[in-house]
Amino acid sequence: MGHGITLSIDAMGGDHAPDSVIDGIARRAKQDPDIRFLLHGDTDAIEKRLAKRRVLDGRFEIRHSDDVIEMDAKPSVAVRRGRQSSLWRALESVRDGEASAMVSAGNTGAMMAMALFCLRRAPGVDRPAIAALWPTNGPHDHCIVLDMGADVRADAADLAKYAVMGSEYARIALGAELPRVAVLNVGIEDNKGRPEVKEAAEALRAMVERPGCSFSFEGFIEANAITTGQADVVVTDGFTGNVALKSAEGTARFVGDHLRGAFEHDWSSRLAALFAMASLRRLKRRIDPRRVNGGVFLGLDGLAVKSHGSADAIGFAAAVELAATMSRADVIKRIASQLAVAPAGEKTPDGSAA
Amino acid sequence: MGHGITLSIDAMGGDHAPDSVIDGIARRAKQDPDIRFLLHGDTDAIEKRLAKRRVLDGRFEIRHSDDVIEMDAKPSVAVRRGRQSSLWRALESVRDGEASAMVSAGNTGAMMAMALFCLRRAPGVDRPAIAALWPTNGPHDHCIVLDMGADVRADAADLAKYAVMGSEYARIALGAELPRVAVLNVGIEDNKGRPEVKEAAEALRAMVERPGCSFSFEGFIEANAITTGQADVVVTDGFTGNVALKSAEGTARFVGDHLRGAFEHDWSSRLAALFAMASLRRLKRRIDPRRVNGGVFLGLDGLAVKSHGSADAIGFAAAVELAATMSRADVIKRIASQLAVAPAGEKTPDGSAA
Repeated sequence: MGHGITLSIDAMGGDHAPDSVIDGIARRAKQDPDIRFLLHGDTDAIEKRLAKRRVLDGRFEIRHSDDVIEMDAKPSVAVRRGRQSSLWRALESVRDGEASAMVSAGNTGAMMAMALFCLRRAPGVDRPAIAALWPTNGPHDHCIVLDMGADVRADAADLAKYAVMGSEYARIALGAELPRVAVLNVGIEDNKGRPEVKEAAEALRAMVERPGCSFSFEGFIEANAITTGQADVVVTDGFTGNVALKSAEGTARFVGDHLRGAFEHDWSSRLAALFAMASLRRLKRRIDPRRVNGGVFLGLDGLAVKSHGSADAIGFAAAVELAATMSRADVIKRIASQLAVAPAGEKTPDGSAA
Repeated sequence: MGHGITLSIDAMGGDHAPDSVIDGIARRAKQDPDIRFLLHGDTDAIEKRLAKRRVLDGRFEIRHSDDVIEMDAKPSVAVRRGRQSSLWRALESVRDGEASAMVSAGNTGAMMAMALFCLRRAPGVDRPAIAALWPTNGPHDHCIVLDMGADVRADAADLAKYAVMGSEYARIALGAELPRVAVLNVGIEDNKGRPEVKEAAEALRAMVERPGCSFSFEGFIEANAITTGQADVVVTDGFTGNVALKSAEGTARFVGDHLRGAFEHDWSSRLAALFAMASLRRLKRRIDPRRVNGGVFLGLDGLAVKSHGSADAIGFAAAVELAATMSRADVIKRIASQLAVAPAGEKTPDGSAA
């Protein structure tokens, strides 16, 4: 399947932890016999759930930790007082080279704050980003959108680096050979938008002219065009990206609710629902967010994948699969060498990234 | 039905003008016998289409103009060279008191630039905003979101004024007595987000303490909660608002496309589609953007309503209805007096707004 790797797991993070976490890694372990797990969290709770999951026999090690970071904990407080937590310990295993990536369904803000502190920024990166897969009608069925909320701001140089980082992600996860990058904006004309997006577009236009650039630049993209798949990588600041993602989530739920409502309206619509069952299930499967679950933290000196807090076993398994794929492809090293080749927004190449 | 009003119409703006425009006003004229129209545009083209619409007999006046602002014209160029256009002339009729509101399906950027120049800002307003109706599951079926893209930036004082302007809109269009205002953010905790949204929240908390404040303040809202209806007015800067709206549009279209695809998959799904027809039509009607078509320009010294550029007659009729409702309720005067009572972000009340 793939070469053997060890993943570090925060067994206590998420709304349904540790059960959904253990069930999730068991689900993925069945498909991929070459992963081992370091499980961080409460030994008793983990062992209880593990007893039912024989597929994991001999493929894990439990590292006990007493603390759990609550889902609503403040990031700054978590960093100061959370060193005994499963989240911090799971990150430490990556920092110390015991695992090639970590996965958590815990508190996103706390995880990013701790990851910055524990793993540190990659050379040349000021603002790390959270990258997510967004369903499209394009050739790869998805595109990569970043930043989804690691930082509420990004200047032109940050956005240009997001393009580099997102392209490596797209090459690995989507199989896009020369990923097409676009900058999210309120229009596609050159004169539209805020100064930082215009400057980012200029920087990217210059970058793709250089030999060895690993992506193409498609200019601006509007949010309603993300799903068309005309870009493989969409870059934006974390405030805008987070709003775009949540607006899409809210709309999908709203349409879904009303679709259900429409089919419960009267006896003929209930009959229609019976006939339509298979079609609706097919649709749901196509756009099921659980199957593409996982925000990848890029721009750090180590790989961390955030599962949705409400993820069930299917969702957590998808995040584990993503972490395994990205770690086997050595995404962190690839990004470092690309940032050294195309130092976006820098005046002189920074050799330290090599 | 309502008291007699005159609306100024840009008959040449939009993808299907003037036909969709004339058909749209005829549609609305049937429902509302107390509207008269000033039709700006090419006399021949307008008269040709009018000949088929007897409901408008004796209820219009044509004002010939030679120029049309193209849908992709640059706003700055439109303002400099577009004084002979139907768009500019339609705005002039409002400025000169001949009509109580104008409606156009033309170029949004050009319309806002011209409106700023022709109608001018309302006293105390630095940044006007475009406000739109957003479908929700809340008590009023919709909420108001602004700014949708009049300006790519907004500081805390602008956002606080958007709250005042949006509340007057919500009271008129939704019938919300004490509209619940929220600020769009990436989380609901006080420490989340950019400085300007935190400052706006502080300003709004202070404003609702003052006697005579016409809205309540609900704090921050995330984009996935807009459709829940927990706020009647959602304020944000025009860049973020535009991205949120287009992300929702893109998602709705994506789900719709796949829904159609799911029902065309094989013979059993085609059969299901037949049975489901009525349910799907009901759903489509519920979330049909044509029926709530119209971005209202707020913060100007005159009322302008922007119809979607691709609007058909149903869509344009909805924009005309909105313009009539807002103008009969005297939204511009109401906003001016509220801004004078609660001068958001100002140190001293500015009497000139009274």
